[in-house]
Amino acid sequence: MSTHPLSSSPQVLAFDVFGTVVDWHSGIVRELKLLRPEADGNAFVLAWRAGYQPAMRRVMSGELGWTLIDDLHRLILDGLLEQFGLGDLSEAQKQHLNKAWHRLDPWPDVVAGLTRLKKRYTLCTLSNGNIGLLTNMARRGALPWDCILSAEVFRAYKPDPATYLGVAKVFDLDPAQVMLVAAHQDDLAAARACGLQTAYIERPAEFGATRPKDVSPDPANSMHARDFLDLATQLGC
Amino acid sequence: MSTHPLSSSPQVLAFDVFGTVVDWHSGIVRELKLLRPEADGNAFVLAWRAGYQPAMRRVMSGELGWTLIDDLHRLILDGLLEQFGLGDLSEAQKQHLNKAWHRLDPWPDVVAGLTRLKKRYTLCTLSNGNIGLLTNMARRGALPWDCILSAEVFRAYKPDPATYLGVAKVFDLDPAQVMLVAAHQDDLAAARACGLQTAYIERPAEFGATRPKDVSPDPANSMHARDFLDLATQLGC
Repeated sequence: MSTHPLSSSPQVLAFDVFGTVVDWHSGIVRELKLLRPEADGNAFVLAWRAGYQPAMRRVMSGELGWTLIDDLHRLILDGLLEQFGLGDLSEAQKQHLNKAWHRLDPWPDVVAGLTRLKKRYTLCTLSNGNIGLLTNMARRGALPWDCILSAEVFRAYKPDPATYLGVAKVFDLDPAQVMLVAAHQDDLAAARACGLQTAYIERPAEFGATRPKDVSPDPANSMHARDFLDLATQLGC
Repeated sequence: MSTHPLSSSPQVLAFDVFGTVVDWHSGIVRELKLLRPEADGNAFVLAWRAGYQPAMRRVMSGELGWTLIDDLHRLILDGLLEQFGLGDLSEAQKQHLNKAWHRLDPWPDVVAGLTRLKKRYTLCTLSNGNIGLLTNMARRGALPWDCILSAEVFRAYKPDPATYLGVAKVFDLDPAQVMLVAAHQDDLAAARACGLQTAYIERPAEFGATRPKDVSPDPANSMHARDFLDLATQLGC
């Protein structure tokens, strides 16, 4: 379902990654199970992910200096270890667990959808994840990005306008020639405020089976798509 | 011919682009010929390229603020237009000609070599070209990069150590786990001074048929390869 006709065709599609491209919930649950089969993986991953926005706010407020997401993930993880019975992990095990965010699987429609979209559009990430994380994830999941863009390139996290406008600037385009693709209405709203086109992707299982997600359309978006295959069809690919 | 055994296997191969991956000489000659069949393409491209290092030095000395290569190319081009009878080009034609650097072809061994290398190594660019230029070039030439790194990411041009060390930092590796691949001994020497491994690639036609290039080995490099296929073989791919 397209919410309204596109004002003009975008040239670059910029993708949010965590939740939109990859399934962080089941990925982290799976990695914890390898270490601690008896632990409550669902509670663990929701707590880890819940620390993400507050940690980025500490950086953007200036309380912390510029920090990569790998390091923010580790800060948050260190605060959860005791609570989840992980206090006895070795340093190497902690580092490995922290990089579980590099080893998340794409949703099943992603590779086929991106492959169709790539024929016609330049595809980049626009994630708060760091470049190394996003590159490792892309190699592992065979994600055919043309370019990895990230908070690390712009030295600002989404929803800072420098990130959305930064994509347009990298490609020497008007903001309206870039479309942000995301499963999060707040990310899309911030992109829209910068003049980007926006496509919402339904990811009803983003938070796992126990926490269903509202995936209803917002007519302010340029497009609303079930998944990347639906997006490709709507974009004529 | 491998000059000496590798101290340890690299994990990331970072590629210089202009001259190493793509043939800028014949690409720019071709584009000029489309505009002015009678112009001296060889003299034009050599003059345009000769302005590149001095222009970057003006940025690194602080005389110019941070400037993308697209804009430096344009500065240099504007200084050459009259001399080469291009003063009557429209602004749109000048912009199109300036972006000829986005439309350079890879050397014939490149795509096959990178495809073999990609199975085992993470492949990134490390170029003074801007991200948009490198991404457009990669789409056009089907260059299978895992990640586009550039002076634009590090806000410094090669041979600034921030660029070579920046690649290692992006991937959370020691410098010795990164190998710079380049057709230029000065670039490789600067990378080596930062602790990177280095591979020299012979590109005897880099400056065109009228200006043969010295491609003799420097034993200081970790490897010396005829082309990317030879590099892949030496690296066990």
